[in-house]
Amino acid sequence: MSDPLPLFARRMDQMRPSTIREILKVTAQPDVISFAGGLPAPELFPVAEVRAAADEVLAEHGSRALQYGQSEGYPLLRGWIAEEMARRGIKAAADDVLVTNGSQQVLDLAGKLFLNPGDVVLTENPTYLAAIQAFQTFEAKFVPVPTDEHGLIPEALPELIRQHRPKFLYTIPNFQNPTGITLSAARRQALARIAAEHNLMVMEDDPYGKLRYRGTEIPPVKHWDEAGRVMYASTFSKTIAPGLRLGWVVAPPEVFSRMLILKQASDLHTSSFDQLVAYTYLTRHDQAAHLEKIRRAYGERYEVLDGALRSAMPPGFSWTKPEGGMFLWITGPDQLDALELLQRAIRNKVAFVPGRDFFPAEGGRNFLRLNYSNATPERIREGVGRLAALCRG
Amino acid sequence: MSDPLPLFARRMDQMRPSTIREILKVTAQPDVISFAGGLPAPELFPVAEVRAAADEVLAEHGSRALQYGQSEGYPLLRGWIAEEMARRGIKAAADDVLVTNGSQQVLDLAGKLFLNPGDVVLTENPTYLAAIQAFQTFEAKFVPVPTDEHGLIPEALPELIRQHRPKFLYTIPNFQNPTGITLSAARRQALARIAAEHNLMVMEDDPYGKLRYRGTEIPPVKHWDEAGRVMYASTFSKTIAPGLRLGWVVAPPEVFSRMLILKQASDLHTSSFDQLVAYTYLTRHDQAAHLEKIRRAYGERYEVLDGALRSAMPPGFSWTKPEGGMFLWITGPDQLDALELLQRAIRNKVAFVPGRDFFPAEGGRNFLRLNYSNATPERIREGVGRLAALCRG
Repeated sequence: MSDPLPLFARRMDQMRPSTIREILKVTAQPDVISFAGGLPAPELFPVAEVRAAADEVLAEHGSRALQYGQSEGYPLLRGWIAEEMARRGIKAAADDVLVTNGSQQVLDLAGKLFLNPGDVVLTENPTYLAAIQAFQTFEAKFVPVPTDEHGLIPEALPELIRQHRPKFLYTIPNFQNPTGITLSAARRQALARIAAEHNLMVMEDDPYGKLRYRGTEIPPVKHWDEAGRVMYASTFSKTIAPGLRLGWVVAPPEVFSRMLILKQASDLHTSSFDQLVAYTYLTRHDQAAHLEKIRRAYGERYEVLDGALRSAMPPGFSWTKPEGGMFLWITGPDQLDALELLQRAIRNKVAFVPGRDFFPAEGGRNFLRLNYSNATPERIREGVGRLAALCRG
Repeated sequence: MSDPLPLFARRMDQMRPSTIREILKVTAQPDVISFAGGLPAPELFPVAEVRAAADEVLAEHGSRALQYGQSEGYPLLRGWIAEEMARRGIKAAADDVLVTNGSQQVLDLAGKLFLNPGDVVLTENPTYLAAIQAFQTFEAKFVPVPTDEHGLIPEALPELIRQHRPKFLYTIPNFQNPTGITLSAARRQALARIAAEHNLMVMEDDPYGKLRYRGTEIPPVKHWDEAGRVMYASTFSKTIAPGLRLGWVVAPPEVFSRMLILKQASDLHTSSFDQLVAYTYLTRHDQAAHLEKIRRAYGERYEVLDGALRSAMPPGFSWTKPEGGMFLWITGPDQLDALELLQRAIRNKVAFVPGRDFFPAEGGRNFLRLNYSNATPERIREGVGRLAALCRG
């Protein structure tokens, strides 16, 4: 008889349940005002329009919507996405588009495609928690790129590349999760140039780009990617609805063909039904008007949050000024322990996510991530009042 | 400047596009009679019922159906699945059920959870092609278990376990893909006993169990799994429709909790919309009557196929007698090259899948897999006529 517990793979030594997950469970009671989640505002989902689209799809293409489909994705949806790419400043044909289960699955596929155990991924610091988890699945080593209020600093890359030979750089250039910071146009150009010169693959993750409520739109890094070094991922989760689990990646051919094999091995393909419903919804309804509604609401909520913080937070706390997206990032005094603050906050019926888990390498005890897309202005004001009282504590 | 091509992970050295995929492209023309695919009959999809369910879901639970959901799956659907498990002879609570993107994703999660490069997976020989691909993603080594017409031979396992220390055994006990063979009740009991005694994890994949058109139902291996060594996967792809991409796994707690973390890192969760639609469909409509319709149709198609083969195939060819499922397996004369036969078959407007790719280790030039779920009796007779003429040479 051998050991009674199964012998799990080495990767499981690092994989831990997400802290956010645990926090979200605690904060699910309706009397807790939660800035902790990352949920889009459900009252802005186009429910009636999706209902009409679902009905049309099943009335007219029922067998196709319910049958196995191509691993690449539904051809008409891939075509729509290619046109959307053009609107974002990216040249892509339908054949360059791989449809995935949300953009999270793109991270899984990128990990599968590139990472042997111990391989280095360059990331912003802090970065998206679930990207850390996705790449940890493949035993990645994380090396943070120096950042400031305009995002990562491209000039730091050549030395990091020389030193660590990273498999790719992972970046969220628009309204980053968790900081809300946007990478400047000049830095995007520089990043594309350095990627070409140093043969650095870049995983550009852009879930929030369409949620800009002020300032001027900046083309994606992929816009400047003449060398074919950038994989660009995005999603319908923030523009239609996350429950459909629809994302995509546009990638250079040698990456695309291999990601396709991995997609097939992972789950054959993404829901035919959801893809046909999304395509029908997108072609029947004015996206610009719908997005404008979301942008206005999130912009208003951000202003309320920023205003409430300015009037209530004690000295020693500062925060980012995002121009879009769903998150704002607070830096507290050096001695702040955000995890300890959270415990007191929950007792006072307000919640946030402590920043530590967003740092792939080290540090980050004195940071808070606040989500503002999923609460009304009234609850935002009330919640900040409770939080600020504790910080003044 | 380094190499201009990105440095892919080692696993990509083994990953190849599926031959079936390429064949399916060639055989998509309507004048080709194809036994090559693995598609359920679309005319039996409950399109009207799913349409009513989708409408109800969006009318009454629109925000929830379109919002992020739990990685575990939609609680009510997990409850329904737990009850279905009881009907199949498996004790499981809703909390033991993880909802996935088809049962294919369970294979990905099992690979992630257990496999370090070079780890051994025991399989039937031949076995499901996409399982080979899923486990190859994690650089598995495959060791075939001796099989006969009643499935794998449990008595062979202790020596294989001693010799290879496999991470798990992968088996499809009901109407196996590709052979159509069913593992006998006695062997299932023996397998469960050996798994307990030798601490062997078993991945029991049961996509076809509900498609039995003759003979008596046999409980799953998991039914006899008192030691908690069996992970049981199944799917709605063959009973509702594959386009919804809904599958599940029931696993022992220490496996479940880790698969959940991996599911979250892979794609956060499975489509909320599809899960609510499936749950609503399942609770509003009589499953027994619907399944009976599918079983009758597939049973009839099998009889037609078997009858046509008996009257037309030359000596030297034999085939399995499945009691359910969607596939039948032909063994040709030793000198047959099924790949070469396929090339001639396609020129004569009939197609099948050559058996070779289903053998994880070696051999298999003289085998053919025939699917009979996705063609009418008339086309089956005509297709066998064309195929037999080529075999008679």
